Amino acid sequence: MGSEHALSLLNHIKGAELTAVCDTNAERMKWAEQHLPESVKYYDTAIELFESRSIDAVLICTPHYDHPTLAIKAFEYGYHVLVEKPAGAYTKSVQQMNDAAMKSDRKFGIMYNQRTNPLYQKLKDLIQSGELGEIRRTNWIITNWYRSQSYYNSGGWRATWAGEGGGVLLNQDPHQLDLWQWTTGMMPKRIRAFCHFGKYRNIEVEDDVTAYVEYENGATGLFITTTGEAPGTNRFEINGDQGKIVVEDGKLTFWRLRTPEPQFNAEYKGGFGSPECWKCEIPVAEGQGEQHQGILRNFTNAILHDEELLAPGEEGIHGLTLSNAMYLSAWTDNWVELPMDSDLFYKKLMEKVENSTFLKETTASKTFDVKGTY
Amino acid sequence: MGSEHALSLLNHIKGAELTAVCDTNAERMKWAEQHLPESVKYYDTAIELFESRSIDAVLICTPHYDHPTLAIKAFEYGYHVLVEKPAGAYTKSVQQMNDAAMKSDRKFGIMYNQRTNPLYQKLKDLIQSGELGEIRRTNWIITNWYRSQSYYNSGGWRATWAGEGGGVLLNQDPHQLDLWQWTTGMMPKRIRAFCHFGKYRNIEVEDDVTAYVEYENGATGLFITTTGEAPGTNRFEINGDQGKIVVEDGKLTFWRLRTPEPQFNAEYKGGFGSPECWKCEIPVAEGQGEQHQGILRNFTNAILHDEELLAPGEEGIHGLTLSNAMYLSAWTDNWVELPMDSDLFYKKLMEKVENSTFLKETTASKTFDVKGTY
Repeated sequence: MGSEHALSLLNHIKGAELTAVCDTNAERMKWAEQHLPESVKYYDTAIELFESRSIDAVLICTPHYDHPTLAIKAFEYGYHVLVEKPAGAYTKSVQQMNDAAMKSDRKFGIMYNQRTNPLYQKLKDLIQSGELGEIRRTNWIITNWYRSQSYYNSGGWRATWAGEGGGVLLNQDPHQLDLWQWTTGMMPKRIRAFCHFGKYRNIEVEDDVTAYVEYENGATGLFITTTGEAPGTNRFEINGDQGKIVVEDGKLTFWRLRTPEPQFNAEYKGGFGSPECWKCEIPVAEGQGEQHQGILRNFTNAILHDEELLAPGEEGIHGLTLSNAMYLSAWTDNWVELPMDSDLFYKKLMEKVENSTFLKETTASKTFDVKGTY
Repeated sequence: MGSEHALSLLNHIKGAELTAVCDTNAERMKWAEQHLPESVKYYDTAIELFESRSIDAVLICTPHYDHPTLAIKAFEYGYHVLVEKPAGAYTKSVQQMNDAAMKSDRKFGIMYNQRTNPLYQKLKDLIQSGELGEIRRTNWIITNWYRSQSYYNSGGWRATWAGEGGGVLLNQDPHQLDLWQWTTGMMPKRIRAFCHFGKYRNIEVEDDVTAYVEYENGATGLFITTTGEAPGTNRFEINGDQGKIVVEDGKLTFWRLRTPEPQFNAEYKGGFGSPECWKCEIPVAEGQGEQHQGILRNFTNAILHDEELLAPGEEGIHGLTLSNAMYLSAWTDNWVELPMDSDLFYKKLMEKVENSTFLKETTASKTFDVKGTY
């Protein structure tokens, strides 16, 4: 991802200047030296980069565990911070990152590029403008994150508690976990999740999850995900007092009730029968939006022109809370109430890291072309 | 339902003769006397009917609780039995009914008319012929059983523990609970369900359920149902080693993998990438099949010509086990392992019946036209 972003900053983002790059991987540094302009400076460690004062803002694209640590350090140095998703591997450290951001007067963004997708922007619009009425059920089947064993074998850190801190929830689903609550404006109050670890692949983390949630207003929700199914499904259904929305195949369909259901129910006397319903095909702008470049541009404009952030960094904790709570529910085989006990989760996660005896057949570390996969 | 079946037997079922009718409801008896031929005999109680020897077979369309009691009695008298769905209200009595049927040499059928639907017959065919491969996930969203409060108010017995023994699972979903395991050939080994009682309507039983199940082979499943949403969804997705089937809007679509997923996974070395997949529109015979008349005809032919039963009565316990286990899981806020503890369930159900203090505003008892609603 770092190389993609570097090229975007160079070629597409007005007002942004790529002045320095930092990587601990010599091979990636070699790539950078070959592809980036001579003016760019190179650093082997984050501290050298931060000390150099060659930057105003830093884009953190490291393994998940390091996001909060590096962001906190960057705020200490007074830099603006854009962090890749997920915000981190566990909420305890992400809360510390958020606290550091709060204390700082610098901009803080997160690479939730799917927030630029017109489909989800329209969904958020329909829900938050009241067209759907009060939400009763959310149901996201997001099982089209197929990953073969060869993907997991491509790096020893992949799909380990120590290396990534999780599986499909932490590596494939951060966007959906963000959009699930960003579009609806609702976080669950409690979660009961069923995670299967290494079910389809030789990995120690989860590759199959079904999570049931309950919201404060009585609504329920489901989140179903796996990397093991082909072909998967990406279908997000949201039911409300005034009908049903389904987002699938790049389309948004709103089954709109002519009379809100509670009113129909109060007035109708005929036994069988249901409210008149119109199938409405909602217009959505073509394409997937500006994606990563949109976030880079917005972040740049936030620094230069105080433009409002589409994806404030502080909001990264919401999606991560959902995935952390799903693990905790599966590990304890019980409900998890939100706000979650971050200390308990951290303790349990560290036990997984320490007790890991996982050895997997790893081919040489590979950097895959990630175009169209995130 | 009884009147519908009586007219079908009279007008459409070759080999069947409607000789007698029994009802404790005077109004329904009046209807029968007005609409049925003079040759038909009338009885106020089941015992009078059974004693009369005016029948060879009995079709039991009473409140759910009475199905097993009456069926057992009918077998004692040596009659063939066709029972309406659900098989009963609790598995303990249904097991007794099955035991009685086993001891008898009479035919025993259940009115699972949806088994005549070409859509579900084709689904069963695709799964059981191996086209889909081993099942990995089943997911039925069946939320289009909308019922307004006026429906529930139409009879004091409706949606009470004492009167019906349950809500949406027992009254609206028996077909789906049957088809879910009939088409896949799989019963779960454990269930974790979340039932909401009187959530959308002024009733004491459940009107909203999310149930998660696990099967012996490691597959998982979901069953999501409510009477409170409009418009609902009826979408059954089944994933297997060789692709995915979706049954929705009267259509069956099979996303067929060219190479089974396990083989692809074993052979593929490219990291990202997934098996080639063909979207196949599967031909399904027009219409919904013969429905109730199909079951009546099949049952008649089973008696007269020893035709194989499409819906053997003994199989009614499977769907009922699923709904009983969902209640038990919700009541105990815990897993329920199958086979379920039928005695425990019966005890808990009777507690609900005894402790019911539910009073609802009931309009005069109504017999709605049920065409197209079951």
